[in-house]
Amino acid sequence: MPILVVGSVALDTVETPFARRESILGGAASYFSTAASLYDQVNLVAIVGSDFPHEHLDYWRSRRVDLTGLQIQEGKTFHWTGRYHMDMNTRDTLDTQLGVYGDFHPVVPQSYLTSQLVFLANILPDLQLEVLDQAPSARLTVLDTMELWIITAREKLTEVIKRSDVLLMSEEEVRQYTGLSSTLAGVRQLFTLGLKYIIVKLGSYGALLFGADGTYFSAPSYPLEEVIDPTGAGDAFAGGFLGYLSTVEPLANGIYDPDDLKRAVVHGNITGSFACSDFSIGGLHNLTMDDIATRYKELVACSHFDPNWQSSRR
Amino acid sequence: MPILVVGSVALDTVETPFARRESILGGAASYFSTAASLYDQVNLVAIVGSDFPHEHLDYWRSRRVDLTGLQIQEGKTFHWTGRYHMDMNTRDTLDTQLGVYGDFHPVVPQSYLTSQLVFLANILPDLQLEVLDQAPSARLTVLDTMELWIITAREKLTEVIKRSDVLLMSEEEVRQYTGLSSTLAGVRQLFTLGLKYIIVKLGSYGALLFGADGTYFSAPSYPLEEVIDPTGAGDAFAGGFLGYLSTVEPLANGIYDPDDLKRAVVHGNITGSFACSDFSIGGLHNLTMDDIATRYKELVACSHFDPNWQSSRR
Repeated sequence: MPILVVGSVALDTVETPFARRESILGGAASYFSTAASLYDQVNLVAIVGSDFPHEHLDYWRSRRVDLTGLQIQEGKTFHWTGRYHMDMNTRDTLDTQLGVYGDFHPVVPQSYLTSQLVFLANILPDLQLEVLDQAPSARLTVLDTMELWIITAREKLTEVIKRSDVLLMSEEEVRQYTGLSSTLAGVRQLFTLGLKYIIVKLGSYGALLFGADGTYFSAPSYPLEEVIDPTGAGDAFAGGFLGYLSTVEPLANGIYDPDDLKRAVVHGNITGSFACSDFSIGGLHNLTMDDIATRYKELVACSHFDPNWQSSRR
Repeated sequence: MPILVVGSVALDTVETPFARRESILGGAASYFSTAASLYDQVNLVAIVGSDFPHEHLDYWRSRRVDLTGLQIQEGKTFHWTGRYHMDMNTRDTLDTQLGVYGDFHPVVPQSYLTSQLVFLANILPDLQLEVLDQAPSARLTVLDTMELWIITAREKLTEVIKRSDVLLMSEEEVRQYTGLSSTLAGVRQLFTLGLKYIIVKLGSYGALLFGADGTYFSAPSYPLEEVIDPTGAGDAFAGGFLGYLSTVEPLANGIYDPDDLKRAVVHGNITGSFACSDFSIGGLHNLTMDDIATRYKELVACSHFDPNWQSSRR
């Protein structure tokens, strides 16, 4: 079941306390497409400038990423520059050059219209709405966003949330959007907008899944020896999550078996962990389903505990 | 199996973004004793001033807290004043009045010498060493500390770590002590000091258990609707952890069945969660083992997932 994604394809300059890389492949849609294409075909809607290296396009073509919806326009590719703090969980944006994204309008090709799963990666809410208008057959829409849109485009963002099934937010974003300090209270307020599921991303601490039906799941994060670059981890998470869901049958439109949803979140944590293990998409580049399965088993082993609260050794 | 604890008994003034309380019962040993006494007898070593309200002593006497080792001295009780930020995970210390702790030297009463489990709550490392010197029969020593001692008393702290079996530290403290940004690398360095287990406390994100034998466990946190005051959550965690271990037989001195250790960490997360649900020890005051068992079952339900990485619904 092919997955439609709209979002940024970018060139990033990233500084961590330990290293710096210039003009490496970045952007939410890049991370998402690379991770999700491990599971199923990805239909990409985005824009790059004439300076964008063709090797990245060749790589995606060699995977299952359809580039029919990728516009290539005279000008500069979107460029983000950021610096991570010592904890590798927080960062500062040093510079943003919109380039060809400045007057981008997404066009969904005819051949993408069979996509039943849609990922609206972090991008201006107006553009997310333009894609939804062009994707009438979507059965599951997953939405990501960021602090900037919560502050500057709250009304449009709310419109997108109302038309989405699954919302991805960090704890801080839940607080910012709802004005509530309690994550549980914030999530409850968000559900009044009609969402079916909400996933609260906790960075290196895993993720929380909430269902409008009462589903609650706390997913462990995969313990990494070393975080090289956490950029794109949330988008790679979305790629594993939606990628996994594309391989199973829903119970109804946008509704999944709780076991499948939990499994999808664990897959997302795993693809997210691989994204952190190198700069750019390096950690996802040669990933196989065997690598995913290995980490899945490790996560079961390190997070399950005896269901009896008392010991037999008394 | 009675548990010996040395640490602070204090009067705190606490400010959160939502409320403020003055001169309420606080201190690491207070939270620990209240939580652990739910499981077993607690033998308290501490000091308070002549201003300390007797109602707190009466409450502990009504539980299983032995106060023979609590010195009551003319002067002021230790007083801490702190203010929490909006995320309730970080705080600033506004004022510290040592009072009678200024020239405190712990004395372990004869009647405490049967204590085989020892908790060295966060206090000056010199005082922790004085207690270890007086507790030769200890079979399991659990150590807590803080940033201040890592910076100002590193050598003495290292001496205490070398004489302890289990170390409790936050991620930030692991980074500060080891100078390593990777928690896994930091933990590995700490194990060279001879520890059997290390627990990395993640605040509202649960806790990680590491064993020198390779044990690794990521414990979920209990999802709280509202955090009223997180002060003492780490000490209440230690109370549940050590309290639970006091009820089971070790495999050898300081070595436990991995299932028991994991269970102990989950108990710790639960007692820690109750501590957050009110100011002072309010959340632990009337706690019963049934309350613990209920949250334990909820944690199993919300954190376990299907061990098969692929679905049958394909």
